Amino acid sequence: MGQSSLSEGDRTELADRLRAEGNRIALVLEELLPRDEDDYISEAIWHHMGTGGKRVRPALCLLSCRSLGGDSSNALYFAAAVEIIHNMFLVHDDLEDGDRVRRDEPTVWAKYGAGNAVNVGDYMHGKAHEAILKSPVDDSTKVRLCEAFDDTYLLTCRGQALDLNCRGSADFTVDDYMELVTLKTGHYLALGMVGGAIVAGADEVVIEDIKKLGRNMGPAFQIRDDLLDLTKGKGRGGVEGNDIREGKPSILYAHSLEHASPEDKQRLIDIMGKDRQETTDSDVQGAVDIWERAGSLEYAHQTAEKLTRQALETLEEIPFENKPYFRQIVRFMTERTT
Amino acid sequence: MGQSSLSEGDRTELADRLRAEGNRIALVLEELLPRDEDDYISEAIWHHMGTGGKRVRPALCLLSCRSLGGDSSNALYFAAAVEIIHNMFLVHDDLEDGDRVRRDEPTVWAKYGAGNAVNVGDYMHGKAHEAILKSPVDDSTKVRLCEAFDDTYLLTCRGQALDLNCRGSADFTVDDYMELVTLKTGHYLALGMVGGAIVAGADEVVIEDIKKLGRNMGPAFQIRDDLLDLTKGKGRGGVEGNDIREGKPSILYAHSLEHASPEDKQRLIDIMGKDRQETTDSDVQGAVDIWERAGSLEYAHQTAEKLTRQALETLEEIPFENKPYFRQIVRFMTERTT
Repeated sequence: MGQSSLSEGDRTELADRLRAEGNRIALVLEELLPRDEDDYISEAIWHHMGTGGKRVRPALCLLSCRSLGGDSSNALYFAAAVEIIHNMFLVHDDLEDGDRVRRDEPTVWAKYGAGNAVNVGDYMHGKAHEAILKSPVDDSTKVRLCEAFDDTYLLTCRGQALDLNCRGSADFTVDDYMELVTLKTGHYLALGMVGGAIVAGADEVVIEDIKKLGRNMGPAFQIRDDLLDLTKGKGRGGVEGNDIREGKPSILYAHSLEHASPEDKQRLIDIMGKDRQETTDSDVQGAVDIWERAGSLEYAHQTAEKLTRQALETLEEIPFENKPYFRQIVRFMTERTT
Repeated sequence: MGQSSLSEGDRTELADRLRAEGNRIALVLEELLPRDEDDYISEAIWHHMGTGGKRVRPALCLLSCRSLGGDSSNALYFAAAVEIIHNMFLVHDDLEDGDRVRRDEPTVWAKYGAGNAVNVGDYMHGKAHEAILKSPVDDSTKVRLCEAFDDTYLLTCRGQALDLNCRGSADFTVDDYMELVTLKTGHYLALGMVGGAIVAGADEVVIEDIKKLGRNMGPAFQIRDDLLDLTKGKGRGGVEGNDIREGKPSILYAHSLEHASPEDKQRLIDIMGKDRQETTDSDVQGAVDIWERAGSLEYAHQTAEKLTRQALETLEEIPFENKPYFRQIVRFMTERTT
């Protein structure tokens, strides 16, 4: 099953390959979101969308379609919809989280104001729907695509609601965390692949397995994100420990609440409950030390590895034509280092 | 054509009748948005939706369907979608505008925070789509309903973008105003009727006439809203002149920029450009005096009347069965006093 991890060279090559695949939506994006319109919307959209992104989600959509025997050019609009909704969530999340920097650029709300950020995101959501309906497929397939999209979208919002409202909570458990990330990331990571499968005419059993793959990959991806926050700034102005400053309910926080000493637990709750501006670098280091002592860092790594194994097992059930490539992609997504 | 205005008694009776019609969606709303879920979303939705609303939009949807020979029970889900998206826009608009009070209750962002207000609105948008897809109609009709919904939704966001970005602008014209309110209100007011007509199987000519009706009614409705802001608090904590405090680009502002004396114009720009907290009651009175002198109040009244006449003329083109009732509704919507 190829349990070995990817080398840095493999990762770079795969990232390039996925970006090339994902970039097939470039013209569709330009058609859906014309630039330079004097509408107080498109400039902000392209300020955000133009700052990069790996295009992994549209790539997964197109690959899934082709690997299930479909014509992936029929999935281009759905792939664009997935990319647009992904970026829409980022625009709104940055506002909800108060993040002022993303990919080393000011976020939409920081640059254009909160009102425009809300409205621009709303517009992007509408555009994602418009994109789905432009797909060159029959009406029944369009309806199926819309249903899959809406279901996933709603679950993602539910996950975001937990994320927003569990911050600094003293009784946040690992089970709560898994529910949160499965809702917020799991369904959504599979959406492109699900849409590609629908366009390919895949049956419900295949769709359900792809969703299960997402429920394994999404949390693994997010746990790596939690861990990366301690070592990289994730493009957020180079700030490490951003999640601690925001009091974000990470797997590290959840695990340590259940396993740290009473003193450590109280100290952690105090740190996570502080306003962002009041959290010092020494608070951030304090939280990391607590996680080290409670075994939370080790637990997070092990959980991510377990989920990656489960994802690879689930993958075997799905009749994708080019399984080795998908195995690499699963590793790429769940063992991310940036 | 019945050019006489409605009496207060007529208005009350009509409001009751529309509310009774609109309330037919009550069970569908409860099904779509179950209460008392521990999800950090439904409480906020019902805090907002429970504070009332006239249910005019779903009523128009159901009436339009029936009056074009359709079975209005098949339009209940679309009617619910229109009500949900209307409320979604209010939740987001209140945040974008910084309004803390609506219908004498705290707005969602004021009560649950900006992050939750964004996410709750996003969820409502997803739910509106889910509702459309639950309609008991064939897949082609579902696609047509989705397309009409998305088109209107996007135009409304474009109108909101103009609204947000023309505040305090010194070169805002009456043409700009008409473009803004047609985008923001016109398409959207017709959406329920358009959906009802699609469910009834109406052809494109009828749909286009209904859209035209909306483009007449919407701006008339909004101009009355601009005027009402000067005499009523519109449930916003009893504050009169709220639009002046917010620097909102009303028809009064647009007209006076083109017709006031240079001194008055400069004074008005200063007042509208002030932060909300810095605008005094005497500033508000000053703006009203300028509008009186420039003839802007009179112009607004005349424009609303002209649009109402045009709406009544457009109505004659539409093959609704019970035309007298629709005439009353047009008057009710465009000659509103509350």
